[in-house]
Amino acid sequence: MSRVVKLAVIPGDGIGPEVVAEAEKVLDAVTAGGDVRFDKTRFSLGAGRYLDTGDTLTDDDLAAVAGHDAILLGAVGGVPGDPRLKDANIERGLLLKLRFELDHYVNLRPSKTYPGSVTPLADPGEIDFVVVREGTEGPYVGNGGAIRRGTPQEVANETSVNTAFGVERVVRYAFELAERRSRRVTWVHKTNVLVHAGAIWQRIVREVAAEHPDVAVDYLHVDAATIFLVTNPRRFDVIVTDNLFGDILTDLAGAVTGGIGLAASGNINPDGAFPSMFEPVHGSAPDIAGQHRADPTAAILSVALMLDHLGLGTESLRVTRAVEEDIAARTGAARTTPRIGDDIVARLQA
Amino acid sequence: MSRVVKLAVIPGDGIGPEVVAEAEKVLDAVTAGGDVRFDKTRFSLGAGRYLDTGDTLTDDDLAAVAGHDAILLGAVGGVPGDPRLKDANIERGLLLKLRFELDHYVNLRPSKTYPGSVTPLADPGEIDFVVVREGTEGPYVGNGGAIRRGTPQEVANETSVNTAFGVERVVRYAFELAERRSRRVTWVHKTNVLVHAGAIWQRIVREVAAEHPDVAVDYLHVDAATIFLVTNPRRFDVIVTDNLFGDILTDLAGAVTGGIGLAASGNINPDGAFPSMFEPVHGSAPDIAGQHRADPTAAILSVALMLDHLGLGTESLRVTRAVEEDIAARTGAARTTPRIGDDIVARLQA
Ligand SMILES: CC(C)[C@H](C(=O)O)[C@@H](O)C(=O)O
Ligand SMILES: CC(C)[C@H](C(=O)O)[C@@H](O)C(=O)O
Repeated sequence: MSRVVKLAVIPGDGIGPEVVAEAEKVLDAVTAGGDVRFDKTRFSLGAGRYLDTGDTLTDDDLAAVAGHDAILLGAVGGVPGDPRLKDANIERGLLLKLRFELDHYVNLRPSKTYPGSVTPLADPGEIDFVVVREGTEGPYVGNGGAIRRGTPQEVANETSVNTAFGVERVVRYAFELAERRSRRVTWVHKTNVLVHAGAIWQRIVREVAAEHPDVAVDYLHVDAATIFLVTNPRRFDVIVTDNLFGDILTDLAGAVTGGIGLAASGNINPDGAFPSMFEPVHGSAPDIAGQHRADPTAAILSVALMLDHLGLGTESLRVTRAVEEDIAARTGAARTTPRIGDDIVARLQA
Repeated sequence: MSRVVKLAVIPGDGIGPEVVAEAEKVLDAVTAGGDVRFDKTRFSLGAGRYLDTGDTLTDDDLAAVAGHDAILLGAVGGVPGDPRLKDANIERGLLLKLRFELDHYVNLRPSKTYPGSVTPLADPGEIDFVVVREGTEGPYVGNGGAIRRGTPQEVANETSVNTAFGVERVVRYAFELAERRSRRVTWVHKTNVLVHAGAIWQRIVREVAAEHPDVAVDYLHVDAATIFLVTNPRRFDVIVTDNLFGDILTDLAGAVTGGIGLAASGNINPDGAFPSMFEPVHGSAPDIAGQHRADPTAAILSVALMLDHLGLGTESLRVTRAVEEDIAARTGAARTTPRIGDDIVARLQA
């Protein structure tokens, strides 16, 4: 009996389509001849689509995407400073709208060094942790506004909204993940300064921690966490934090473990009410678009995360192994985007 | 004719008194026999004082401190998790209160590698930039609150307040500083997500930049800025950013350039209406307090920043040079806190 997975593919802008093409190649290769078939629908969304039609993400787009079992996204965003995009915010209007509307409350971002990883650290050691970043609230809600706009008396407020409902579900996810890893959770915030947002996080972490007496918990202020990410990244196993701190820590973690070209992510709706979305952490990099210079590895590892999420653990592991072998074999010589994809497919089939 | 500088000294908690003692030693040595005399008043403030008296910073304390020409602070904060400090927030009640009440709107944090600096980066190169961190508003204002506290329906809000007045003065300071350095300003925010706070920063940076056509300006999202801090820190000269992003970036910058034990800072009121305050970026580190293991260099470099701020450029340079020589001569062998102070004084007098 064969299973069909309805996959929405959003290549997006810049290098997005290039890296997604390789991710699809790998997905096709790993599922070829198997029991599971991916039925793909391509969505043309992003800055390009906005420039063509004026639409970012319509209700119809959203409903159509939501009707799938999973989403694979490349990267979205136009050329910085493009005057035609002045009134658009593709990030909020498309990427964050998808994360919020599809209730992706867990933004899962593994950070791992592979044998052969090139990192800016003198002595990185073996790094292997996962950031569980809250995805649907905190400073990302867009609440706020300004008065006396454009005048010397302007006041602009930006409000972080944190709910017990929202914090608890993501903290719970992190502790459950830690139970399956090495039973250590580090939660990160800035409780000594952001006292209101910090207090609700602290209360809930304590409550959930009490239900997991076998999990060791420690707390770091976000500034201290960035220090440890460069001085002792091995100390981390599962990090749980809010939407903004998670954004910052995962870019830094990507840089530290081998470059943002390897950093994959899953925007997960663990309840399964909506499709989860898998995407490289990197952006659309319009400056190198079309040159076949982008590393598709982060997109390919995002496919591995997707396969795992869909219960296809064997296929996920095969992709990860092929990527690991590819990284270990790197010599520093430049390869084109499709070449890296082909090499990984070849290892998969070997 | 001799000048008297009234200096408020706040040794604080943990390693604060130890590092301040060395900073004072160096200050005494560099001013000995000169025209400027520092008239010091010692203030017992911090977690220790709170535990003794229940007071954090009274109106009388504040008025007394404010009556000085400058402030030298070690570090404040008790042992994390101390139940007797449960209802105290020494950071907000003392440190941030001083910064806010004394209108320290420029939090100046230089980051520099010295010959001999030990950094976690494989190839740091010569790093030399200054972060101009806003000090009196943004997410640090403490505005917000919670409803249905302690229940599953709790909602906790934390509001970042950004004024044209507050943003303009710090951005202006950064551009003026850049005019005296290599004429490059990088401003850092997260404009694509924090649209309300981001828009006021963007407008004002543009307006001030237009008055400085000779200064090159670029913008980075905070997440991208952390990547560059580890992959290419040499790209930075002057960074200007808000209170929270500045907190994060300067801890990371400290780690990258040679450890938080070297990172000095000035909380500056450029108008001179209030005394400016100089302090190491590191905290009170209660875990190593009393063991004479703390590096007093950050406190000593804070004295150099103070001397410069007070117009004592020659003395400031002498301290910096002595510190540079000390760092260059480091062998990795452990020295006690007073020993490092003594060694720097000896170089000063050589
Ligand atoms: C593009 C941007 C809105 C996004 C974020 O801040 O979440 C990106 O930086 C990321 O980390 O996926
Ligand atoms: C102690 C804390 C309130 C403080 C801050 O966040 O500003 C510290 O981290 C710093 O950077 O000086």
